[in-house]
Amino acid sequence: MKAGIIGLGLIGGSMAVDLRRRGFAEEILGVEAEPVNAAAALKIGLVDEVVDMEECIRRSDVVIVAVPAGQAVNLLPEVLDSFGEGSGSKVVVDVCSTKEQLAAAVASHPLRRRYVSTHPMAGTEYSGPWAAMAGLFDGHACIICDPEESDADAVKMAEAIYDVLNMRVIYMNSSAHDVHAAYVSHISHVTSFALALTVLEKEKDEKHIFDLASGGFSSTVRLAKSSPDMWTPILSQNRDNVLHVMDTYIEKMQAFRKAIESRDEDAVRGLIEDANRIRRIIR
Amino acid sequence: MKAGIIGLGLIGGSMAVDLRRRGFAEEILGVEAEPVNAAAALKIGLVDEVVDMEECIRRSDVVIVAVPAGQAVNLLPEVLDSFGEGSGSKVVVDVCSTKEQLAAAVASHPLRRRYVSTHPMAGTEYSGPWAAMAGLFDGHACIICDPEESDADAVKMAEAIYDVLNMRVIYMNSSAHDVHAAYVSHISHVTSFALALTVLEKEKDEKHIFDLASGGFSSTVRLAKSSPDMWTPILSQNRDNVLHVMDTYIEKMQAFRKAIESRDEDAVRGLIEDANRIRRIIR
Repeated sequence: MKAGIIGLGLIGGSMAVDLRRRGFAEEILGVEAEPVNAAAALKIGLVDEVVDMEECIRRSDVVIVAVPAGQAVNLLPEVLDSFGEGSGSKVVVDVCSTKEQLAAAVASHPLRRRYVSTHPMAGTEYSGPWAAMAGLFDGHACIICDPEESDADAVKMAEAIYDVLNMRVIYMNSSAHDVHAAYVSHISHVTSFALALTVLEKEKDEKHIFDLASGGFSSTVRLAKSSPDMWTPILSQNRDNVLHVMDTYIEKMQAFRKAIESRDEDAVRGLIEDANRIRRIIR
Repeated sequence: MKAGIIGLGLIGGSMAVDLRRRGFAEEILGVEAEPVNAAAALKIGLVDEVVDMEECIRRSDVVIVAVPAGQAVNLLPEVLDSFGEGSGSKVVVDVCSTKEQLAAAVASHPLRRRYVSTHPMAGTEYSGPWAAMAGLFDGHACIICDPEESDADAVKMAEAIYDVLNMRVIYMNSSAHDVHAAYVSHISHVTSFALALTVLEKEKDEKHIFDLASGGFSSTVRLAKSSPDMWTPILSQNRDNVLHVMDTYIEKMQAFRKAIESRDEDAVRGLIEDANRIRRIIR
């Protein structure tokens, strides 16, 4: 199997590592617009060659689009265009965190059925080929969206990839995906960004933050290190769902604020006990 | 050295573990109001005996008050009362997360100088003697408040304890402590509680939360498992500082909300880049 990966960052790079060492791909071609990242990906050994998109598509059996969601909207139709006629069994898979706009971008493409929409839900707060790591996806969930819009053999290819990556595959339509992703993933990035902004504004003495930050603060603020290149388009493409969850979140903060301000310890305790229900669900 | 620990939860229990195995205390007496917790602490071997408060104080060289902040306000003056006259070299240390109200509660006590106000900034989201663990404090910061209000030998005793626990000691007055703790610790618990409440309200299907929660969500929501017994009095005692930080936090969320709503990608990117400055400070 020859795999082409467009975008050699954390996700594309980590897929390359495990698809190779677990024997899925004997050759991996990379496409990377940023010269420093391209050189690093080659040097680290994530890919065998860095080539241009046309060559990558021509030589690969499966093409993985692992660029930020904002770029993928334009790039995905171009990949399908390049498949051309008689492309036969070639498949393209994307790994973006938002799915509805991408689905719309290729909805009427004549080769739509060679595309499989996927979201492997794993990552770290780091980015770039140097952040790529083995085992990143192991045990996490991967959503395959709108499988009925893709050819059966194309879906099988995507399933084979995520099987090699040890992911639990869940099926959902794009619209449901974006709603759930806003609830469970996107909002926690926004709250983490806001926490970092708050602490940086209130605590002018950075040494105090460093000295006093305990494990609790570090884990809560960790996602605030996440890349603007990745998250700006996600928050933009999933705007309506994210705004809806943010409104609920701000209401909860206001409820806490009111209970604390009015010295209503029963109400504060009640809110914390409600929040504690998450214990049953998360680990 | 004989150490008495009042409150055998996560903090008191973990101190017992390391003070014993690192040779600081050859005997550890515990006081624990909850019978199940007391029996567990004995069975786990955190303490040699569970005794009543009077006996604990009489037989201990140093008494560590490790109960929730709401109880400590009443308990700490009682401990000093029990020291009585001629108590000589006995020392009491508390480990609460809020310090100003405690300082006020003992300000005019005739034995005030035998008390040292401390806050070892370490913990997990779990509680009870079964959550106690070795090495919990290693490498974290411990704040000693108002050291000039305590006898020099009492401060030395506290320093010796935190030296054994491998903590970096920082000195601060109680008021400054409560401001900084609100910025760096208390707010991140409130944001985590609010996140849990939001996700539990929006995502009625708990299986979806379980399936889709990635490492990022889990780490951001982790603190929402924290105990209401501990956190209700902290938020109450540090009310003014916490409200002040919450207001700034809600402003930052509103700024994000506005940027996303108005489709201003430059503003969203700017906010994320600002938040990314936390990278320089946290790990």
